[in-house]
Amino acid sequence: MPRPLNSESQKPLYQQLIEEVKRKIKSGEFTQGDKIPSEPEFMKTYEVSRITVRKAIEELVTEGYLTKKQGKGTFVNKPKIKRKIENIMSFRNACLACNMEPGYKLIERKLIKPSSDEIDFLNHGSNEKIIYTKRILTADGDPIMLENNYFPLNGFEFMLNENLEGSLYTLLKNKGINPIHSESCTLELVSATAFTAKLLNVPAGEPLFYMIAHIKDSKNNPIHIGRQYIVGSRYLFNIP
Amino acid sequence: MPRPLNSESQKPLYQQLIEEVKRKIKSGEFTQGDKIPSEPEFMKTYEVSRITVRKAIEELVTEGYLTKKQGKGTFVNKPKIKRKIENIMSFRNACLACNMEPGYKLIERKLIKPSSDEIDFLNHGSNEKIIYTKRILTADGDPIMLENNYFPLNGFEFMLNENLEGSLYTLLKNKGINPIHSESCTLELVSATAFTAKLLNVPAGEPLFYMIAHIKDSKNNPIHIGRQYIVGSRYLFNIP
Repeated sequence: MPRPLNSESQKPLYQQLIEEVKRKIKSGEFTQGDKIPSEPEFMKTYEVSRITVRKAIEELVTEGYLTKKQGKGTFVNKPKIKRKIENIMSFRNACLACNMEPGYKLIERKLIKPSSDEIDFLNHGSNEKIIYTKRILTADGDPIMLENNYFPLNGFEFMLNENLEGSLYTLLKNKGINPIHSESCTLELVSATAFTAKLLNVPAGEPLFYMIAHIKDSKNNPIHIGRQYIVGSRYLFNIP
Repeated sequence: MPRPLNSESQKPLYQQLIEEVKRKIKSGEFTQGDKIPSEPEFMKTYEVSRITVRKAIEELVTEGYLTKKQGKGTFVNKPKIKRKIENIMSFRNACLACNMEPGYKLIERKLIKPSSDEIDFLNHGSNEKIIYTKRILTADGDPIMLENNYFPLNGFEFMLNENLEGSLYTLLKNKGINPIHSESCTLELVSATAFTAKLLNVPAGEPLFYMIAHIKDSKNNPIHIGRQYIVGSRYLFNIP
């Protein structure tokens, strides 16, 4: 039985309650993905008013510790993957830095006709086919990112045969290819289509980060275009 | 009456149609915010199949030129404000670079009790009240950002009286205060609460960028904490 909060403290009751909930998340007493007690249960357990409970939960939602699901209750969020925002990104390193295990699932690879952006960047204006790969990247088994990559055919034929269920940049480096910088890299916000939502195991309409990068090597040769959809609730960018 | 597309061209019909729609958006024939013709109208006007029309519209949605609204049709998006992602940001300069007019509306300013993050960063551990301001920033009159700022009271008393319906950083510079860097700056994705949605004139649940910055001057003195909610459909970050 937890002790009620200290109503004589300088610290407002709702802040004490916030700290209590954070402690329980940290200790594992409130498990990630699980529902937390209802407002009346909090009121009874901690001998506080509904206003105090609501204010604490609202702030914990704003801070990203909890999520309210319409008609279902309030749930403990899984941790976000924190990644420094920069134009060359390694999903593997971001996961490892957060003590999560990266995973890779190949959904599709094929030769396709390039679109105008792809012709301009990858093929120096030529219309020849390019290599397209679609993968789902996971952290501790949860889908985090739908990655679409586009490579020129010339010099990247190995992408048609190699095992792509591992770190892409490790594979490229083993082939002597070093992604160095992105010519243009943008970050936007989109809603998941039914197709994307299914692959990422989120509801259709779920907000996603959408990042487009045009990656080159140190000699300014194009390596690939990346178009990535990232689950918003599981990602946090650190801006240097 | 537009000419039908060229079915003997090397370029696929859907790509020709994409270019045609982009041309019409650029020329103003398709106005931003307006509905575009229906699938059958496109099929008739350009003498193409439904598959071609769908493929073109789907790519234009992905590229951010169009938005589908359930049960209402497909609409031309307003342009996104392009801003270089960096930890000191000027909304004013981003707007001007996009040929849009920045606007500022003060919603609230008051003294508040600091939360623990605010005590740590602004008050060097002291519990004294801080200055809180809430503003809506607009581009060409459209709400783009809900800005919550938190300043220490000591040295920032002028914030209680000055006109805040203009560029904050211009005002601070006039007072001899120079925001230089952010100690920690994060970018996340959240859904608009009913309250935030109303201020930003978007539906509740609309996806928003959520940016938190801790701004200091060149002598490492705290200036403010900023917590900003940005309309996702109107913003694009360029990653340097």
